Amino acid sequence: MVAKRAGVSRQTVSNAANAPHLLRPETLQKVLGTIDELGYRPSHAARALRTRSTRVIGCRLLPSNYGGTGGVLDRLLHALCDAARSKGYDVLTFSVGTDDEEIGVFEDLLRRGAVDGFVLTNTHHGDVRPNWLLAEGARFVAFGRPWGRDQAAHSWVDVDGASGTRQAVEHLSALGHARVAYLGLPEGNGVGDDRYRGWHDAMAALGAPTKGLVARAEDGIASGRAMADQLLALPIQPTAFVCQSDTMALGAIRAIEDRGLRPGEDISVVGFDDSPVASLWRPRLSSVRQPIEAVAQKLVEVLLAELSGLQRKPSRDLLEPWLVARESSRRAPGRADRVSIPDVPVRVATAKTRFSN
Amino acid sequence: MVAKRAGVSRQTVSNAANAPHLLRPETLQKVLGTIDELGYRPSHAARALRTRSTRVIGCRLLPSNYGGTGGVLDRLLHALCDAARSKGYDVLTFSVGTDDEEIGVFEDLLRRGAVDGFVLTNTHHGDVRPNWLLAEGARFVAFGRPWGRDQAAHSWVDVDGASGTRQAVEHLSALGHARVAYLGLPEGNGVGDDRYRGWHDAMAALGAPTKGLVARAEDGIASGRAMADQLLALPIQPTAFVCQSDTMALGAIRAIEDRGLRPGEDISVVGFDDSPVASLWRPRLSSVRQPIEAVAQKLVEVLLAELSGLQRKPSRDLLEPWLVARESSRRAPGRADRVSIPDVPVRVATAKTRFSN
Repeated sequence: MVAKRAGVSRQTVSNAANAPHLLRPETLQKVLGTIDELGYRPSHAARALRTRSTRVIGCRLLPSNYGGTGGVLDRLLHALCDAARSKGYDVLTFSVGTDDEEIGVFEDLLRRGAVDGFVLTNTHHGDVRPNWLLAEGARFVAFGRPWGRDQAAHSWVDVDGASGTRQAVEHLSALGHARVAYLGLPEGNGVGDDRYRGWHDAMAALGAPTKGLVARAEDGIASGRAMADQLLALPIQPTAFVCQSDTMALGAIRAIEDRGLRPGEDISVVGFDDSPVASLWRPRLSSVRQPIEAVAQKLVEVLLAELSGLQRKPSRDLLEPWLVARESSRRAPGRADRVSIPDVPVRVATAKTRFSN
Repeated sequence: MVAKRAGVSRQTVSNAANAPHLLRPETLQKVLGTIDELGYRPSHAARALRTRSTRVIGCRLLPSNYGGTGGVLDRLLHALCDAARSKGYDVLTFSVGTDDEEIGVFEDLLRRGAVDGFVLTNTHHGDVRPNWLLAEGARFVAFGRPWGRDQAAHSWVDVDGASGTRQAVEHLSALGHARVAYLGLPEGNGVGDDRYRGWHDAMAALGAPTKGLVARAEDGIASGRAMADQLLALPIQPTAFVCQSDTMALGAIRAIEDRGLRPGEDISVVGFDDSPVASLWRPRLSSVRQPIEAVAQKLVEVLLAELSGLQRKPSRDLLEPWLVARESSRRAPGRADRVSIPDVPVRVATAKTRFSN
């Protein structure tokens, strides 16, 4: 139908979807214009044209047992299924222990023709999976930047963690806090370093001290408690903590209570990821929330563009998180009357796309 | 290879896997014996023989937003992926809003040959999905009993909720509690009625009163708080609460605190599902834990038996949950010295299978 209307061969229509580089630009435009005219969306038309389309997206299911405060990747899976199904796709999930095992599953699924492409999660330094997929010619998009790699090698979608911790510092600064400490992961973790950088640069921009206000350890309530306790033992205590995770933040709240101080009232705490426990805790925990639904929609959109063959250059999308301020972050003591903070976003994410091609 | 060794036709081997009722018992035994002899597991052999096997199991992804304390179905998905992959299968997940939409997805996936079978979750009264699947000849197993239906119509795996609440009552009774109240869902919900029954029957068996000790409302912290508050206003207060969910239990804890009483010390509380928040809360929440990993393994085992065609009768497996006792359930006041309860299972589930065929 498209071929007839556009006055081209079926092969040309097929090429428009699967190998657009084989067509002259004006022919490609004609075919796409006709597809548009007929009311098909390009991705649907391309899908119908692909002979071996499974309409299935493969995605590893990561354990979400970060001390019970995790859940971002479970949220992502739900959002990914929603976003995929709205485009007529489903998600095939698999559980593996290591990246090597994941590559084994990729190989198996590709050999069996069980999926059209993949969503890669948990990208990290020295990640061997992207190059393996690129070498195989597999279609994929990553949730997470190619830390330390050529940014242009493949499409990715990520959340701007530095912006999240910067928003936390600015929020605390507006509440009168000057000594804002940071609890984070040991150096070398891409996500961790990004969040640390946001705190550091925001503090520097405010002319606030950063020296001696950082503690680093693996994630966990116990480690958050120990790190916060160490900083609270300083001659001049921090008045607030920005934390890499909600788990660390809950540990910081305990350390504050251990010293007979009131979290939120005496010392403020901001977590990261707005896990389900954040709004249940007492005091209710202020936390940076990732725009997971927008991430999932963008991942599906980019992967479908990759599958359609219409995506010529890898795309890069960095989405903005936002701070949800609750009772655990309040006006610094001695600065002014305490105010009650409603449970609303301080800044509503607009799912701003910064570097999209 | 199997056909040659067993001295039968390929069609006979195929029938052994796909239509065993067509074969004489001794022929079937011979083929299965040969498969065994060659070191294949029956399910693998059957799989290899099935011409249209996808090695994919379809499963709806249910939202897990029960006030932040849910997560049982997310746990199930992780466990299901693990169990499936250990058998060479993967799980295709899809997100839909209603049972009718789910049937639409079943239809789509079956037409496309995208899955071999389904795991059905969240079975309920008046559920139209099992009959639809049976009518289509689709292979499936349900997580959840066919509430109010012919128990023999299809295979299912479930957790014995009544046993869970009975264990909670027995635990509290052993701690000296006689007035143990129940907070649950409105009547008519299969899971809810089952958990209520466990509490009721255990109380009756102990000769303890049940009258005026029940409150019912939809799930939620606010409703748990309101229900508990109502029962705490009685002339003779309950000394403990057994709750349908951890969410209701957290509400009960707040209601106890609202009255200046100490949860765990003055009034005990036991939740259900051992959600991630249970061990993080203060006091740490005693809760009934479902054997989700065993459920997932059983679901995959039963579904593969269904797929192999070797399963002649629907199977029924009811697994035991167990109580994890923590700080929120302690010796009744005035009974004896308070004891500290370690964070260990009171009774370790043996994944006991009661009604398996």
